[in-house]
Amino acid sequence: MPALFLLEPGQGPEVSLQGFVRRHPWVRLTTDPLFVHHDRGAPTRRVALVSGGGSGHEPMHVGFVGMGMLDAAVPGKVFASPHNRQVYEASKAVARDGGVLHIVKNYTGDKINFGIAAERLAADGIDVERVLVDDDVATESDETATGRRGTAATIVVEKILGAAADRGDTLTSLAALGREVAGHSRSIAVATEALTSPNTGARAFELEPDQLEYGVGIHGERAATAITRPPLAELVDRMLTDILTSLPGDDRKPLLLLINGLGATTELELCTVLELAARALGDRGRDIAAVQVGTFVAALDMSGFSITLTQLADGWIDLWHAPTGAPAWKEATR
Amino acid sequence: MPALFLLEPGQGPEVSLQGFVRRHPWVRLTTDPLFVHHDRGAPTRRVALVSGGGSGHEPMHVGFVGMGMLDAAVPGKVFASPHNRQVYEASKAVARDGGVLHIVKNYTGDKINFGIAAERLAADGIDVERVLVDDDVATESDETATGRRGTAATIVVEKILGAAADRGDTLTSLAALGREVAGHSRSIAVATEALTSPNTGARAFELEPDQLEYGVGIHGERAATAITRPPLAELVDRMLTDILTSLPGDDRKPLLLLINGLGATTELELCTVLELAARALGDRGRDIAAVQVGTFVAALDMSGFSITLTQLADGWIDLWHAPTGAPAWKEATR
Repeated sequence: MPALFLLEPGQGPEVSLQGFVRRHPWVRLTTDPLFVHHDRGAPTRRVALVSGGGSGHEPMHVGFVGMGMLDAAVPGKVFASPHNRQVYEASKAVARDGGVLHIVKNYTGDKINFGIAAERLAADGIDVERVLVDDDVATESDETATGRRGTAATIVVEKILGAAADRGDTLTSLAALGREVAGHSRSIAVATEALTSPNTGARAFELEPDQLEYGVGIHGERAATAITRPPLAELVDRMLTDILTSLPGDDRKPLLLLINGLGATTELELCTVLELAARALGDRGRDIAAVQVGTFVAALDMSGFSITLTQLADGWIDLWHAPTGAPAWKEATR
Repeated sequence: MPALFLLEPGQGPEVSLQGFVRRHPWVRLTTDPLFVHHDRGAPTRRVALVSGGGSGHEPMHVGFVGMGMLDAAVPGKVFASPHNRQVYEASKAVARDGGVLHIVKNYTGDKINFGIAAERLAADGIDVERVLVDDDVATESDETATGRRGTAATIVVEKILGAAADRGDTLTSLAALGREVAGHSRSIAVATEALTSPNTGARAFELEPDQLEYGVGIHGERAATAITRPPLAELVDRMLTDILTSLPGDDRKPLLLLINGLGATTELELCTVLELAARALGDRGRDIAAVQVGTFVAALDMSGFSITLTQLADGWIDLWHAPTGAPAWKEATR
């Protein structure tokens, strides 16, 4: 059943980005090569933040370009890494005196293309560091060298680093902070229905009714296990157990709790998951310092959600709550 | 294929609302009877705005409670009208000296329940007026007495009236303005895949691949016609033609353009629709004063979108751009 309206198989996000900047005219769209950036950043910011990756995860990354978050975002075609020339030109366009920090999700293509761009930037005399986000505990294994996939914790890293950049942190400090935040963030995702493949118009995979893909990826990568769907509270508790087991830090530290929709999951459901997760953490005696809920890191139109926990260190919560003008950030109170 | 995580058939939105107020702790949740409200409204506001309807359309209505928009929202169970006692108690809780304005979508159950509540409020000495929203041109017919359904134009009415209420407009003025805005707003919705029924866990209807439900309702009401899916630009142009034909006003007036996702439609697609709609209106020589894009009035997890146009009169654009603290409103620039 073809559910997506994407015009042509393999089509890029160009037309969609034109629509995006109609809504947000202060975001600048460059088409050759393709990237978006803005120049409303804080004057105190010494280091530019650049992220990117395949399209199909919107609002990430373009929705997080704005005051207090990213200076530029580099979108590839759907689920495909951007070309290194896009990353290079975007970074050049926004680089500040203190250099450029790349926030990269742990996928081979992204690592290669951001890596080539970083070498070219270094050759131009621009200091570059990278923060790799690798939060998905479903891919945690001693048997593979690729490590955990990068998923929804990306926006936690982008939010906290954005605020730290605005207070004038150096490239070295930001890179160290970003690695700490990523290192203390873990996620897991589940799906009840696969995304629609933009190439075939069909579901990327079929699940039996009552089956649940436990540990699905944000490109529709199958989980290692399909399980019989438990009651939601039980499912949420199992996800939290897997996340907390993987988190390395002090288990008395307060937590950030992020409930993220994978595309087709309603706000009615996401807020239900938030409530059940918060209760389950409370039952474990954990302190929740802040929560966020919405569709931030989608897997096209997959039905499902992810839970992300970040174990907070001193001062991070103030960075989390700092104001941002990024269109896709959802404020708690205004 | 059951895709929703709703716990039980017939379950209400209570747990979800508890999660919602964890994220937005300034929103007050009352459980008996069920409604949400806030008390951060402008001191200049003389009339309280109350809306509501069945759940399953989130973020509408609860997401539009906040400074500059609604004072209270009253959620029914999924796709079911709230009870009149909910409407009555919510209205009592937020009523101001100038009374209460009810913003009601044109469905029989909502009209009845808001109507009974209005009678009870009047008996208590509270002035009440109603603005009925009836924008869906798919249900425009001389043959039925029910009139057009109320859909995504509801948030246009809520946004403009919210700003007008904040400047101190009287109940009479607000009701007249709301009727003007509703009267100059039209929408149409299309779907490529039905929503998941929360009662059966199955799709509410099945479409052949390549078929499109042209004129679908936000509860999954079937369209009068299923059509073979045309190229997206052609589809958008047809939708605009139907909307513009139905709009009553001066066709030189500037337009608001709202692209609304019905649940499972990605931002990548919605921004594409926005761009194509804006181009098509430009080709017709129409002036677009403002655009909005996102999932605001969902039909659970339906795959599809709606287009809404509002023909602007003098001064409305300033009300549209006035600040709001409603969590679900998406700002263009911050």
